[in-house]
Amino acid sequence: MLRAHSTFFNMSGKLTYKQSGVDTKEAQSFVSDIGAHVRRTQQNRKLHQAFGLFAAAYDLSTYEEPVIVTGCDGVGTKSEILFDLDMPETAGKDLVAMNVNDILTTGGDPLLFLDYLGISNLEKERARITRLVSGMCDYLQSCNCILAGGETAEMPGVVPANIVEMSGFCIGCVEKRQLVDPTTVREGDIFVGYPSDGFHANGWSLVRRVLAEHPGLLNDDELRGILAPTRLYHDVVCHLRSRGVVPKAFAHITGGGLPENLERFLGAHGADLHIPEWENDAIQKVLAFVDEEDRYHTFNMGIGWVAIVRPEDAELAQTAGPGGTVIGTLRKGAGIHVNTK
Amino acid sequence: MLRAHSTFFNMSGKLTYKQSGVDTKEAQSFVSDIGAHVRRTQQNRKLHQAFGLFAAAYDLSTYEEPVIVTGCDGVGTKSEILFDLDMPETAGKDLVAMNVNDILTTGGDPLLFLDYLGISNLEKERARITRLVSGMCDYLQSCNCILAGGETAEMPGVVPANIVEMSGFCIGCVEKRQLVDPTTVREGDIFVGYPSDGFHANGWSLVRRVLAEHPGLLNDDELRGILAPTRLYHDVVCHLRSRGVVPKAFAHITGGGLPENLERFLGAHGADLHIPEWENDAIQKVLAFVDEEDRYHTFNMGIGWVAIVRPEDAELAQTAGPGGTVIGTLRKGAGIHVNTK
Repeated sequence: MLRAHSTFFNMSGKLTYKQSGVDTKEAQSFVSDIGAHVRRTQQNRKLHQAFGLFAAAYDLSTYEEPVIVTGCDGVGTKSEILFDLDMPETAGKDLVAMNVNDILTTGGDPLLFLDYLGISNLEKERARITRLVSGMCDYLQSCNCILAGGETAEMPGVVPANIVEMSGFCIGCVEKRQLVDPTTVREGDIFVGYPSDGFHANGWSLVRRVLAEHPGLLNDDELRGILAPTRLYHDVVCHLRSRGVVPKAFAHITGGGLPENLERFLGAHGADLHIPEWENDAIQKVLAFVDEEDRYHTFNMGIGWVAIVRPEDAELAQTAGPGGTVIGTLRKGAGIHVNTK
Repeated sequence: MLRAHSTFFNMSGKLTYKQSGVDTKEAQSFVSDIGAHVRRTQQNRKLHQAFGLFAAAYDLSTYEEPVIVTGCDGVGTKSEILFDLDMPETAGKDLVAMNVNDILTTGGDPLLFLDYLGISNLEKERARITRLVSGMCDYLQSCNCILAGGETAEMPGVVPANIVEMSGFCIGCVEKRQLVDPTTVREGDIFVGYPSDGFHANGWSLVRRVLAEHPGLLNDDELRGILAPTRLYHDVVCHLRSRGVVPKAFAHITGGGLPENLERFLGAHGADLHIPEWENDAIQKVLAFVDEEDRYHTFNMGIGWVAIVRPEDAELAQTAGPGGTVIGTLRKGAGIHVNTK
C-alpha cells in the first residue's frame, strides 16, 4: 500500500526524514497491519507479479476481446460525518461501492481496486485507517475484486488533523461482445429499480446543512441508520447474468438522482418513473426540509440501481435482487420525470 | 471529469443543493473549461465508448496476451509549496509523472490516466485547477496517455481553503512476453542512471523543514528551480525499445532513494553505486542541512531513473536519454550502497 521509506536516527545535528514529521517505521508497521486484509481479496484471483514492485500487474490473456473499464470516485462530505461518529469501516465500504458500482454499469467484472488515503499523521490515524481498509476489503472480497495497491500519504500541514482524504479507483474487464450498450434501448423497454440502503454517498452537504439547522432532528440510531454504506449491486448484476437476462443499460444512481443518471445516456428517449414511497422515517424527517423538486435531483430517493431490460425480461429481472420493482417504461422524447406512487 | 448535478433555485424556503455549498452550475462550466485539454490527450488514442457514461472503456482486443499494469500515487507535501508559489501546472505534471513512471518500470505502455482533485470551493479554485489540468494534459499528451476521467470533488468543510488534495491513477498494458522481469538480473549486469530534474515529488517534508529553519537560504528563482516537475522517463524507455535494448529491470527513484527503490526487487543481489555529484547549487544548499546518510534514503540524489541491462547493452543504453551514465554493476549479496564520485 505504502511506499517503504527508511528511517535514520540523527547522529549529526542535521535533519532526518523522521524529524521532518514523516515516520517511516510506523509506515512499515501499518503495511503489515493491513496485509491480512489485502490477502482476503486475493483468494480467488491473483496479481500477475509479486507485490512490492512499482505497479500491480494482472493477466488478461484468457479474454478473447478484452475491453477494460475504469472509474475514479470518492465519498465526498459523507466521510467527515462518518469519521466524527467513528464509522471508518462504513467509509471504506462506501469508497469501494461508489467505484465498483460504476464499473458494473458497463457489464464489466471488477478486477482491481486501488485506494489513496491522505492523512496528517500515521501514528495517530493508524488504527482508524486499518479499520477503514478492513471495511474496503469486506466489500472487495464479496465481489472478488483484488486490492491491488494504493497509497497512504502522510502529509503533515496539508491534510487537517482527524481528516482522512479518500479516493478510490477501480478497473474492470469485459468481453467486447458482452459490453452493456445503452444505445440498444428501444421504446417499450422496462425500467427495473432496486432499493438503496440510504442516502449512500451523495447529497451529504445538503443533509449536513439540514441537520445543522435542526439539531435533535434525528437521534443517534436514526443518524447511524441513514449513514448505512452504499449498497454494492454486484449480486443483482450476477443474478441477472445467471438467469440469462441481457440488460440494455444499467444506471448507478448517485449525485443528480434518477433524472441526471438516466438522462446522461438516454438521449432522445425518456420515461415517467413512478417509484415507491421511501419507507424510512429518519430519511423522511430530513427530506421534509428539502425542496420537493430538488430532492429528486440530489438523492437516490430509495432507488440506487436501475436496469433497463426488454419487456419479456422484466418479470425475471425483478427477482434478481430483493425489492426489485418495475418503475417505468421507455418512451420517445427526452427527459426523466419522477414521482412517488 | 465531474459528475453532473442539477441546480434548482429555492422557491419554497426549503434547502436546495446549491444553498448547501455545492454549486453544480459552476461544476458544469468547469467541465467545459477542461474539455479542450482532455481532447489533447485523445488525438492518437480513443476511448471505446462515448464520454459521459459511468466508466471509461478502452479496447485491448488488438493485444495477443495483454497484461494490465496499474498504480496510484499523489504529489505529497510538495503540492502545498507549489500552490503557495502559484505553480499549479507543475503540480499537474508531478501528479502524472509520479504515476506514469511507475507504469513504465514494468514495460507497460501508459494508456489511461484518472485524477481525483478534492477542493473546498469550485468557484474559488476553478482557475487554478484548470491550470493544474492543463499541466497534467501537457505530460499526458507527450506520452499518448488518455485523460480518461476522474473526479473533482467540492468538499466544503473537509478540504481546507486554498488546498487541492490530489491523487492520480494510471493504467498501462503490455504484451505478456514483453513484461520487464527483474528476476532475470544476473551478476555483472550494468546499472545505467538517468538524471532527475530536481527533488521531484519526494522528501518535501524534509526540504520544507530545512527552508523553515533557514529562511533566506534560497532566493525565489532557486526555490522555483528545485520545484521543477518530476521528469517523465517515457522518452528514455521508448529510445531503449527502438534501439533493441531489452531491460532486465527499471527503477523509478522516489521516496527511499536509490537503496530502497532498487533493493525492493533485487533480493539476494546488490551493488555499490557511484553516482555523479548532483550539480545544482540550490539543491546542495539544502542538502548541507540534511544528514549525510539520510539524504541517500530520502532523495533521488540526481538520478531519477535506473535501467539494469546486459553488459553488451550498456553503451547503447547510456545514449537513450541525456546524461545517461553507468553507475554500477550487479553483484551477489544483498544491499545497495551509494556514494558520490
